[in-house]
Amino acid sequence: MSSMTPLEEMRHSCSHVLATAVLRLFPETKLDIGPPTDTGFYYDFDSEHKFTVEDLEKIEAEMTKVIKENQAFRRKEVPRDEAIEIIKARGQERYKLGRLDDIPEGEAISFYENGEFMDLCAGSHVRYTKKIKAFKLLSVAGAYHRGDEKNKQLQRIYGTAFPSKDELAAYMEQIEQARARDHRKIGKDLKLFVIDEDVGQGLILWTPAGSVIRQELQNFIGNELRKQGYHQVFTPHIGKLALYKTSGHFPYYKDSQFPAIPEPDDFARVATEGCGCAELTARLEAVSPHFANEINRRTGTETIGADRVMDATKLLDGFMLKPMNCPHHIKIFDSQPHSYRDLPLRLAEFGTVYRWEQSGELNGMTRVRGFTQDDAHLFCTEDQVAAEVMGCLSLVKTVLSTLGMSDYRVRVGLRDPDDSKFTGDPAKWDQAEEACRNAAKTLDVPFTEEPGEAAFYGPKIDFVVKDVIGREWQLGTVQVDYVLPVRFDLSYIGADNQPHRPVMIHRAPFGSMERFCGVLIEHFNGDFPLWLAPEQVRLLPISEKVIDYGRDLLAQLKAAGIRAVLDEHSDKLGAKIRRAELDKVPHTLILGGKEAEAGAVSVRTRASGDEGTVPFADYLARAQNEIATRSLPVRSS
Amino acid sequence: MSSMTPLEEMRHSCSHVLATAVLRLFPETKLDIGPPTDTGFYYDFDSEHKFTVEDLEKIEAEMTKVIKENQAFRRKEVPRDEAIEIIKARGQERYKLGRLDDIPEGEAISFYENGEFMDLCAGSHVRYTKKIKAFKLLSVAGAYHRGDEKNKQLQRIYGTAFPSKDELAAYMEQIEQARARDHRKIGKDLKLFVIDEDVGQGLILWTPAGSVIRQELQNFIGNELRKQGYHQVFTPHIGKLALYKTSGHFPYYKDSQFPAIPEPDDFARVATEGCGCAELTARLEAVSPHFANEINRRTGTETIGADRVMDATKLLDGFMLKPMNCPHHIKIFDSQPHSYRDLPLRLAEFGTVYRWEQSGELNGMTRVRGFTQDDAHLFCTEDQVAAEVMGCLSLVKTVLSTLGMSDYRVRVGLRDPDDSKFTGDPAKWDQAEEACRNAAKTLDVPFTEEPGEAAFYGPKIDFVVKDVIGREWQLGTVQVDYVLPVRFDLSYIGADNQPHRPVMIHRAPFGSMERFCGVLIEHFNGDFPLWLAPEQVRLLPISEKVIDYGRDLLAQLKAAGIRAVLDEHSDKLGAKIRRAELDKVPHTLILGGKEAEAGAVSVRTRASGDEGTVPFADYLARAQNEIATRSLPVRSS
Repeated sequence: MSSMTPLEEMRHSCSHVLATAVLRLFPETKLDIGPPTDTGFYYDFDSEHKFTVEDLEKIEAEMTKVIKENQAFRRKEVPRDEAIEIIKARGQERYKLGRLDDIPEGEAISFYENGEFMDLCAGSHVRYTKKIKAFKLLSVAGAYHRGDEKNKQLQRIYGTAFPSKDELAAYMEQIEQARARDHRKIGKDLKLFVIDEDVGQGLILWTPAGSVIRQELQNFIGNELRKQGYHQVFTPHIGKLALYKTSGHFPYYKDSQFPAIPEPDDFARVATEGCGCAELTARLEAVSPHFANEINRRTGTETIGADRVMDATKLLDGFMLKPMNCPHHIKIFDSQPHSYRDLPLRLAEFGTVYRWEQSGELNGMTRVRGFTQDDAHLFCTEDQVAAEVMGCLSLVKTVLSTLGMSDYRVRVGLRDPDDSKFTGDPAKWDQAEEACRNAAKTLDVPFTEEPGEAAFYGPKIDFVVKDVIGREWQLGTVQVDYVLPVRFDLSYIGADNQPHRPVMIHRAPFGSMERFCGVLIEHFNGDFPLWLAPEQVRLLPISEKVIDYGRDLLAQLKAAGIRAVLDEHSDKLGAKIRRAELDKVPHTLILGGKEAEAGAVSVRTRASGDEGTVPFADYLARAQNEIATRSLPVRSS
Repeated sequence: MSSMTPLEEMRHSCSHVLATAVLRLFPETKLDIGPPTDTGFYYDFDSEHKFTVEDLEKIEAEMTKVIKENQAFRRKEVPRDEAIEIIKARGQERYKLGRLDDIPEGEAISFYENGEFMDLCAGSHVRYTKKIKAFKLLSVAGAYHRGDEKNKQLQRIYGTAFPSKDELAAYMEQIEQARARDHRKIGKDLKLFVIDEDVGQGLILWTPAGSVIRQELQNFIGNELRKQGYHQVFTPHIGKLALYKTSGHFPYYKDSQFPAIPEPDDFARVATEGCGCAELTARLEAVSPHFANEINRRTGTETIGADRVMDATKLLDGFMLKPMNCPHHIKIFDSQPHSYRDLPLRLAEFGTVYRWEQSGELNGMTRVRGFTQDDAHLFCTEDQVAAEVMGCLSLVKTVLSTLGMSDYRVRVGLRDPDDSKFTGDPAKWDQAEEACRNAAKTLDVPFTEEPGEAAFYGPKIDFVVKDVIGREWQLGTVQVDYVLPVRFDLSYIGADNQPHRPVMIHRAPFGSMERFCGVLIEHFNGDFPLWLAPEQVRLLPISEKVIDYGRDLLAQLKAAGIRAVLDEHSDKLGAKIRRAELDKVPHTLILGGKEAEAGAVSVRTRASGDEGTVPFADYLARAQNEIATRSLPVRSS
């Protein structure tokens, strides 16, 4: 915490002010930690008392007092034994002694003091509490000590702070807007997706309406891919453990994957050796670490060492729900010999993958356990890397601008040369990083280099997109990979008639269809552009007399491939219009006697309201054009 | 075996003649059984001697002798103790005593005798061996006793027999044709799909070429579905065990499903109770019956009773790879209230499902462990059932006739009223069966009623399609379901404002994309119609000079959405033509100097050979028309 920005420093200090206030009001409270975050700060408390929203107001009032007292923040470095004394004297042994243990021998141990409050803390802080100009407590939520479900759940109080009251107000407005746009709420109102406990948390059932949006997005990107010479493939959603052992994803990443599916034949092979209970547990551990760990923990059985697990793993096979598509695409590439003339070979798939997210982390469509990547893997020669990366970036750019997400920046993730996770030849890393850096430069958008943020197999470029209310989302990604081609021993025959190693590029412009759709719902606030809207046009006849006219137009719209609905309910026009508004149908066509006589329609759009009466043929041509060009609605209001 | 057709009787007798000959040549052989099949017969032998192809010739020669001896078949009914004596006297205790045990008390026990041979057999048989007019032994293959992998593997000799030498010759010709058309061979030659051991047996990797065929088929059926008012949905590939407990598929069908994926949270819940080794095994049994059974069998542990398994099952949860899509579609239907006005609601998905097939049963694309159904579930009122079934049948008909599979018959699977597997209200069964029967009649194709062949939840209509070499394949299916709506307690509000139970229709015109594509490969012998061909047109410039002309045409073809390739290799035209023939490209356009000057192309098609020179614009229009109308190639040869 030594290199904080001034804003982070202020928020960090505000978290200490929060803890100061809490201890004044609830002296029995045990403290854990209170860092700044990207948007504010929090502090984790352990208290018999359950904090309510009313408490937050009281705490805010007390914090305001602390700030007015203009307490100075003072740093105090102490030896370890004195630190233990201080913690004990303040009755904060429960968490702080463990936190103290985290500080390696030889590193400075420091406390920060303000007024009567004192906290084990590396810093840094503002000089006086009055430097905190505007703050607000936002919420209280459960949070496990050290983020581990096995530990006690603490109470986390979230807050934020800004250099001015105006900035705080603007942020509160953004939060309010975000709440109104919450894709979980809009998704429910517009019936776009369903999550059902019997199917499973974090698993999206795409309803007919939501599926239209997904399919339109897939068609859009599919067309772009065809133009760019990609080949579509289809692969299964499982693969043998052996595949993920080769790729390196198992067992190293097994905690973020679903437990393996036992393969009867191979398990039987292992079972023949004879099977005591410990042996059985060892095997279970290898395929279902969560399960085995839990059994061990709760029954007090000794946990099996990592080497034993690896031994058992080698013996076992079974299937994994695929956590990524690359090994399958690699197998397709590797199923036949390739010449340099075949490269680049670009294999694309809308491939559904499964990852084990903790249930507390799941959130509607944006944080899920199963998601469909608009994935592709490009196999190319080293000479082609730069051009292919450029092609990928330009695809992401096309995708984002089509969806009105033109405000983005780019992060180039580079290796940390001191970190052993980044394997492979340094010269190739340099080359790949240079290709990524150059490609990012040509995009003509803000970009930052982030050492240590590369994938373990190579550098990557991430798009961070700002939505209409100013929130940032990490969406598309392009990654260069020199490692998997080695692990799978891939090769092609070069112009020199010798075998060469291809380079792989991983890329996904949307990232995940689920997450992207969730973001789009919030970005558009449910008001999708015409080409994406599940229901594009609704016909509202003002009376029974013009129903036949409505049916005629409905047939013409459908024949033109437009998703139209005729509202045949018998209620009044006002009610029909309100219903169409609630359903956020982009275009409604009001049909009265005059319109029927003239072959016309009275047009209302979500973007501009009442647009007057036009001949139906004119409206049809306009709608078709809006769809074909994937126009974004331009709001007149 | 009491109601055999005359052909089956002859084939059954031929299997006895086979066993007679085998015992003459290899007297130590132990006999299991030898029934007729749809296309011939087999006999399962247990012998130290491994039968070779040369042996088959010797055995055939001996069989011809037995037939010439014109032995009479004589039936002999005996009491059980005498049957045991006969079996022992002939040294055939190993399998025959077990087969004898299968015959229930009170039923007749009979042997059939011909010459020196005598076999425990219910019959029936021809009267003399000379009634066998033409026969042939085909192959020898491993087969587990009683089809169970846990039992010893026997040697199964396959053969066939016909009433005339001509019919046998025609059948042998069909087998030869089938071998040449084997989709596994063509699939490899044309690079249509790959199966990789590291991904898993029975799991299809669709290559770029194969994916084109699948995508075209999906586009074709997707368009038909849109016209018919279906809604597309997307659902995950897993679901919680609870879902399949409700549907009734777990644990009853668990042996044909992949073992469950343990769900960490829920397993942990169970683990808290404390966990002895037996307890752990009981839980394993519940989710991974194969695994637990194998452990029990091989370690001699007592198998846990079914009631114990059920108890453990109730406590547990976890995920299953979905063996079918219906529960997910039901959850989408049930996610909001419905009025009768919303019905029929037709939900369609290209949904990939996973089933556990024994490895010995796997076969290329036609018998797999993961497959994508062109699935849909229709939710309708009882009054709508008949019309919806008709709509489904007409869709299957359209699909089959488009693919040149117009030679089919239909099987209407009805319930067996005495079988408890067919649950539900008999009056509703009658109604559903009548709807299926009537719909089948209107198809104007041969149809048979098959009592006992219904699904457990309702009657069904299966399409049995004859391919160009006369083999039959069961493809599309339509099923009416009154049971799952009850199990999931589905309802809609009727015109009377009261809740009513909807009826479900399950239907899949292709059945499975994998299986259907496998059949299509063999049906077309790899010569796909233009609209389906992965590569539709190949341009063959006769020299360097016309390469630019070729590139120009290539661009025009691609712009028209045609999958075209320019052969830029430097070899001679003859070699280029041969390569295009091997790759079974439907159309090749030969480009020489004259053609380039005239803006023409010299057309060769797989169907008709050399078709002469035409202006390129004419060719383009013809190709576009052939694709748009999904024309089938008409062979001139």
